[in-house]
Amino acid sequence: MENFTFCSPTEFVFGRDTEKEVGRLCLKHGASRVLIIYGGGSVVRSGLLQRVEQSLTEAGLPYETLGGVKPNPEDGLVREGISKVSGERSYFLLAVGGGSVIDTAKAIACGACYDGDFWDFYIGKAKIEQALPVGVVLTIPAAGSEGSGNSVITNTATGQKISLRSPEHLRPVFSIMNPELTYTLPPYQTASGICDMMVHIFERYFTNTAETSITDHVAEGVLRSIIEQAPLVMKNPQDYGPRANIMWAGMLAHNGLCGTGHVEDWASHFMEHELSALYGVTHGAGLAVVFPAWLTVVSRTNPHKAVQLAERVLDVCPDGLTEHEIIAEGIARLRRFWSSLGLPTNLHELGIEQPDIDALVRNLHVTKGEPIGGYVRLDRTLTREIYELMK
Amino acid sequence: MENFTFCSPTEFVFGRDTEKEVGRLCLKHGASRVLIIYGGGSVVRSGLLQRVEQSLTEAGLPYETLGGVKPNPEDGLVREGISKVSGERSYFLLAVGGGSVIDTAKAIACGACYDGDFWDFYIGKAKIEQALPVGVVLTIPAAGSEGSGNSVITNTATGQKISLRSPEHLRPVFSIMNPELTYTLPPYQTASGICDMMVHIFERYFTNTAETSITDHVAEGVLRSIIEQAPLVMKNPQDYGPRANIMWAGMLAHNGLCGTGHVEDWASHFMEHELSALYGVTHGAGLAVVFPAWLTVVSRTNPHKAVQLAERVLDVCPDGLTEHEIIAEGIARLRRFWSSLGLPTNLHELGIEQPDIDALVRNLHVTKGEPIGGYVRLDRTLTREIYELMK
Repeated sequence: MENFTFCSPTEFVFGRDTEKEVGRLCLKHGASRVLIIYGGGSVVRSGLLQRVEQSLTEAGLPYETLGGVKPNPEDGLVREGISKVSGERSYFLLAVGGGSVIDTAKAIACGACYDGDFWDFYIGKAKIEQALPVGVVLTIPAAGSEGSGNSVITNTATGQKISLRSPEHLRPVFSIMNPELTYTLPPYQTASGICDMMVHIFERYFTNTAETSITDHVAEGVLRSIIEQAPLVMKNPQDYGPRANIMWAGMLAHNGLCGTGHVEDWASHFMEHELSALYGVTHGAGLAVVFPAWLTVVSRTNPHKAVQLAERVLDVCPDGLTEHEIIAEGIARLRRFWSSLGLPTNLHELGIEQPDIDALVRNLHVTKGEPIGGYVRLDRTLTREIYELMK
Repeated sequence: MENFTFCSPTEFVFGRDTEKEVGRLCLKHGASRVLIIYGGGSVVRSGLLQRVEQSLTEAGLPYETLGGVKPNPEDGLVREGISKVSGERSYFLLAVGGGSVIDTAKAIACGACYDGDFWDFYIGKAKIEQALPVGVVLTIPAAGSEGSGNSVITNTATGQKISLRSPEHLRPVFSIMNPELTYTLPPYQTASGICDMMVHIFERYFTNTAETSITDHVAEGVLRSIIEQAPLVMKNPQDYGPRANIMWAGMLAHNGLCGTGHVEDWASHFMEHELSALYGVTHGAGLAVVFPAWLTVVSRTNPHKAVQLAERVLDVCPDGLTEHEIIAEGIARLRRFWSSLGLPTNLHELGIEQPDIDALVRNLHVTKGEPIGGYVRLDRTLTREIYELMK
C-alpha cells in the first residue's frame, strides 16, 4: 500500500425530503448570499428549484440564479458565473443538478477567487489557493462530483475537456442526496450514470500497487452492490431502495475511498473524454464502449487485476479455465451487463459511424502526453488499437 | 434505507514515517500549544514520544505531556487533564496511542469547554456545545476512535463504563496512521483489536432496516479483508502490507461508513462493557466471547442477517443446509477464526471462573434500561441466557 492522505469533509444529508434542509445547511456553512446554479428545465418543471428557493427564503438568504448548464459543461457559462460573483467573495455557490452543474459551480468557485483566467487551473498553469464554498442538491447519481474534489470542464475554443483535481478546495461543504429526486431520470441517463460510477471504481482498482486488500475489498463491495441494484432501478425507476443504494454508491465510487493507497490509472476516462469532446456523446455511455476495449488490451500484458475482478465481482468460476479465458469471460459478462441496461457496446451503437481514429489518438496524446496510463503504459500504437477495438 | 447524515471530516495521513508530520498538522489545524496525552511506557520506550516532541519543537509549538492512560480508561485522568488545560481554550490535544488514549483526549476536549462535570455528557445530563480540537498519532488499530465521534470512559466511583457519541464535536481533526508503529503490538492485543473492529461492523450490520445493499456490501468487504489479512498479521507481525490493511480496516469499521442508513444495535458492546467493568478484561477479547452468544440467541427469532453473513463473509455454502444449519456453521466458523487468533471462546478462557451473572444482568439493565437492542429486543431473561451461554 502507498502512503496516502484521505479527507472527505463533505456533510452528506441523505434521504427523503432532505432538499427542504438546504436553507439551514447553507446558513450552517456560512452563507450570506447564494448563487443557485442549475441546468435545463427538469429542475424547474419538477418544482425542485422552487422548493430550494423557498427554503433559502425561509432561512433569510438572498439568492440569484444561473441556469443553462449543459452536459459536458463548457467554459462559457463558467465565465458568466465568475463575472456574476466577481469582486464578491461572500457568495455561496449552490449547485442543483448533476455532475455538470456541480463541476460548473466548482469552476466558478475557484475562478472567482483568482485574478487570472480560471482555465489556468485546468491546464496546470496555476494552483488553487482559495475557492468559494459549494453546496449541492444532487439530482443525478453518476459523476460523483457531490463528494469529490474534481471538476471536468470543456473549453469550446480549444476543444479540450480537462479534469481538475483539488480535494482541499473543490469538495462540496454539503451534499443533499434525496433518491426520490432521481425517479424521473430517463433510462439511458440512469444507465450511463451507473456505468460512470463503475468505471470511477475501475480506474482506481486497476493498479500495480501491492497489498491493497482493504481498498480492493471495499471497491468490490461497491461494485457488487451496483451490479445487484442496477437491474432493479431499470425495472422500477420509482422504487426507493434501489435508487437510494445506487445514489450512495455513486458517491462512494468517487470520493477517493475506493482508491486509498493505490496508484490510480485514469486512461479510460482520458480516452472517453476525447470521444465526448469530438462527438458529444454521453460520458457514461462512452465509457461502456471504451472500458472493455481498454481492459482487453491491458490484460494481455498485466492480467492479475482482471482475473480478480472476474472472480470476485463478476462471479466467474475459474475451475478449468485458463487465465485468458477467465478474463475473456469477465469482460464478456461486463459487456452483457451494461448492454442489458441499454448501453452501447461499440462506437456504432454509440452513434459514431465513421470514427476519426487519427484525430482521437492525436488529441489524446496532445492533451495527455505519451505514454498515458500506469497499470499498463500506453503509447500511440496501443491507444490506436484500443480505439480500433471499439468499432 | 433510513435517512442519514454522514460527515467524516478527519484528515487521515496514512503510511510510513507519517508521525514526522505531526508538527505540521497541528499547525495546519490551528494549534498554538499542545497537550500530549499518552499511556504506558511503550510509547516512551519505542522513541515515538520523542519523535513527536521533536516534530512539535521543529514546528515551534510549545507542549506539555499527560501520561498514564490505562486500558478501559478512567475518569480520574480525564479530570487531571481538564484541570491542566482549564481556563485555557487554546490547547490542542494530541493523543499518541490507541483507543484508550484517544477516548481520554476526547473526554478532556469536551470537559475543558464545560463548566460542570465532564461525566454529565456521558450520562446524558448535558450536551456538548464546544470541544477542544483533538489530533491523533495511532499506535493500536482496534477501537476506531481515530475516525469516530465516540469516547468510552469508565467512572471508577460508580463502576459505569459508558460510550458517548457526538460526531460533530469528537471526531479528531487529523489522525496519523503509520502501520509500522503497530509492529510491536503483542499478539493478544493485535487479535483483540481485530475482534473489536469486526464487532464494530457487526453492531451496524445486524439491522432490520430494509434495502441496505450498498452499506451491507461495503461492510462485508471490510470484514472479508480483515479475515483475509488477520492470519498474515499474526504470523508475521512486521509485514507492512497486512498491518496496513488491518489498520485502515479498523478506521473504516467505526467511522460510520459501515452503518449508513441503518438502525444500529449495540447490544453486544453493552454486554461486553459490563464484563470489562466487572472483571477488567480486554474489550476485544470480551467481545469474542459475547458476540457469538448474542448471535446464537438473536438468530433464533431473527435469522436473516446471520444467514447473509454466513454465506457472503464466512463462505458457508448453503446447498443442502437448513437456515438453522447455515447459521450454526457461520457462528462455528467465526468462533474458530477468533480462536485461531488466540482469542477466548468462553468466560473460562477469558479468565472468569465464577461469573456473577446476576450482577452482570443487573448492571446491564441499570445502565441501559430494559429491553436493550433493536435487531431483537432483549429483556432480562434473554440477556441472562446470553451470559449463561458464554460459560
